[in-house]
Amino acid sequence: MSQFTIKDDEVDIVIGALQPDLTSFMEQWRPFFSRFHLIIVQDPDLKGELKIPEGFNLNLYTKSDIDKVVGSSSNAISFSGYSCRYFGYLMSRNKYIISIDDDCIPAKNSNGEPIDAISQHIINLTTPATPFFFNTLYDPFCEGADFVRGYPFSLRSGVECGLSCGLWLNLADYDAPTQSLKPDLKNSRYVDAVLTVPARTMLPVSGINISFNNELVGPALLPAFRLAKEGKVRWETVEDIWTGMCVKVVCDHLRLGVKSGLPYVWRQERGNAVESLKKEWEGVKLMEDVVPFFQSVRLSESAVTAEDCVVEIASSVKEHLGPLNPTFDRAAETMVEWIKLWKRVRAN
Amino acid sequence: MSQFTIKDDEVDIVIGALQPDLTSFMEQWRPFFSRFHLIIVQDPDLKGELKIPEGFNLNLYTKSDIDKVVGSSSNAISFSGYSCRYFGYLMSRNKYIISIDDDCIPAKNSNGEPIDAISQHIINLTTPATPFFFNTLYDPFCEGADFVRGYPFSLRSGVECGLSCGLWLNLADYDAPTQSLKPDLKNSRYVDAVLTVPARTMLPVSGINISFNNELVGPALLPAFRLAKEGKVRWETVEDIWTGMCVKVVCDHLRLGVKSGLPYVWRQERGNAVESLKKEWEGVKLMEDVVPFFQSVRLSESAVTAEDCVVEIASSVKEHLGPLNPTFDRAAETMVEWIKLWKRVRAN
Repeated sequence: MSQFTIKDDEVDIVIGALQPDLTSFMEQWRPFFSRFHLIIVQDPDLKGELKIPEGFNLNLYTKSDIDKVVGSSSNAISFSGYSCRYFGYLMSRNKYIISIDDDCIPAKNSNGEPIDAISQHIINLTTPATPFFFNTLYDPFCEGADFVRGYPFSLRSGVECGLSCGLWLNLADYDAPTQSLKPDLKNSRYVDAVLTVPARTMLPVSGINISFNNELVGPALLPAFRLAKEGKVRWETVEDIWTGMCVKVVCDHLRLGVKSGLPYVWRQERGNAVESLKKEWEGVKLMEDVVPFFQSVRLSESAVTAEDCVVEIASSVKEHLGPLNPTFDRAAETMVEWIKLWKRVRAN
Repeated sequence: MSQFTIKDDEVDIVIGALQPDLTSFMEQWRPFFSRFHLIIVQDPDLKGELKIPEGFNLNLYTKSDIDKVVGSSSNAISFSGYSCRYFGYLMSRNKYIISIDDDCIPAKNSNGEPIDAISQHIINLTTPATPFFFNTLYDPFCEGADFVRGYPFSLRSGVECGLSCGLWLNLADYDAPTQSLKPDLKNSRYVDAVLTVPARTMLPVSGINISFNNELVGPALLPAFRLAKEGKVRWETVEDIWTGMCVKVVCDHLRLGVKSGLPYVWRQERGNAVESLKKEWEGVKLMEDVVPFFQSVRLSESAVTAEDCVVEIASSVKEHLGPLNPTFDRAAETMVEWIKLWKRVRAN
């Protein structure tokens, strides 16, 4: 099986630290994290020194590292809040990146044993994806599975997987209005499946629990979309939703796959939904323009790398979304800045 | 919940009988079938009288009924083998049709209790579908679920569901070559989810365990695609795969949804895979042309009913696929004949 042919040092686990004490988080993940190299990025708004337990192979980046690398070259890019993880993506030189929010711990299987989300992400990234025809029995590359009758043989080899979107149990990933209206609604449904999201289908990628092939799509994982009143809880942000649609468009264009499903993580409570309800949440309004845009944007044949694709998407954002709201103009500028920064960091 | 607002007499359960003794099949389904009206159609190639236990509200159709209704009006349409069920669809006057192969019995849940596939199909058909954006937590209308952050509010009301494709445990639904090469590969993975297959994504619909809204898409469920050496085991047929893609194209055009996932049924053994391997199986070759055709066919704005859509698809089949293989020409003719028959039966 291809998932056993990758070496541990081809993987970086990137954690954005939004809380000062990572002890509990790291200890619970220790059985699954300890084989791999970690990149921890401290939210630049978070003062003081992080508490991180001993015994991990890691690089820690703080505000001063960010300032050193980005310096005064860009005013557009912000690594604050959830966006701090993108600095980790920028600094990684490994082929595969796995990233999990610091308010998530391993989910448990029906025997009460913690689930190894890392291995499952590696399986997802190293087995083919099948975006051009839907397999009703889900991932045909999963053990004990295959392609059902009627699946064209010419499509059975599949394509490389660019992005794997894991899911979460307990605290569901709703937006601010839904979270406020249904604060007690938890996700308790464990769905034992991975599937490839079909080509040309958009999805709301949540940054809670994701992994990607950095060589293929890395430049498209970018901190471009920041709401005016963005907070430090997921339900007040949409940066990952925007980024996810960028990656999906890039994958569709480059004939790569995006998978969704396993692995699950367990999301713990953070934040106060009622406080969020008091803010006017721009996300609801903006998504009505964002989704049709990403559904219809098409890239030129000359876009052959993720960098090329991002630059083309940025230009299209400026043209089609820019006139609707200045948030979109800023996102387009940030995307262009990001690609420059990405190239510059790699040229050094 | 809308699923409790439909009346039992809005449903027909249609069974194609390919075996002479339905006793065991009917007894196992009795707890779930007995509230509803059944239509049983005997494979016209199957001689003798069917054995059906007492206590069901049903209509039985045999070769002589088929001859009476279809008469000499069409030489193109064949109701033999798995296609006999289509005669039941033709005769039904109810809004919802559920159809399950006669070699399937209720699957069991983790407590060993039989699963009510009928209720789940009714839930699938009477709750909205969401074909225009993928919800990563699967069916948002399922109990305890909702739309995840980033899902546009304007798409949250969804659209009507046209077709619900259930799944199967135990004997997996592979094609003849796969079934022959992996005779021991069973499907044992129970995936607790329903999802809407995104618009413009094709899937291999299996006729094993399906239901549909007869008013919305009934005319598109048709017996048009018959392989030269078609047998009486599913892995030697593709009639349902063809039909499924017709329905999917119709649903995409009419802005209806197709769901896949729950409910499961338990498929028992039938047929000899090694015998099937001795036949040259045309299905593999033909699917290579069929799938790209259905992926690219587009209907005109003047097609506003399922009947209109089928006639347009037939004309496109004749034009684009006809030159490749006479099987396609025959399918196109049969589709046109079917729509005439459908209208004639309903005009009486």
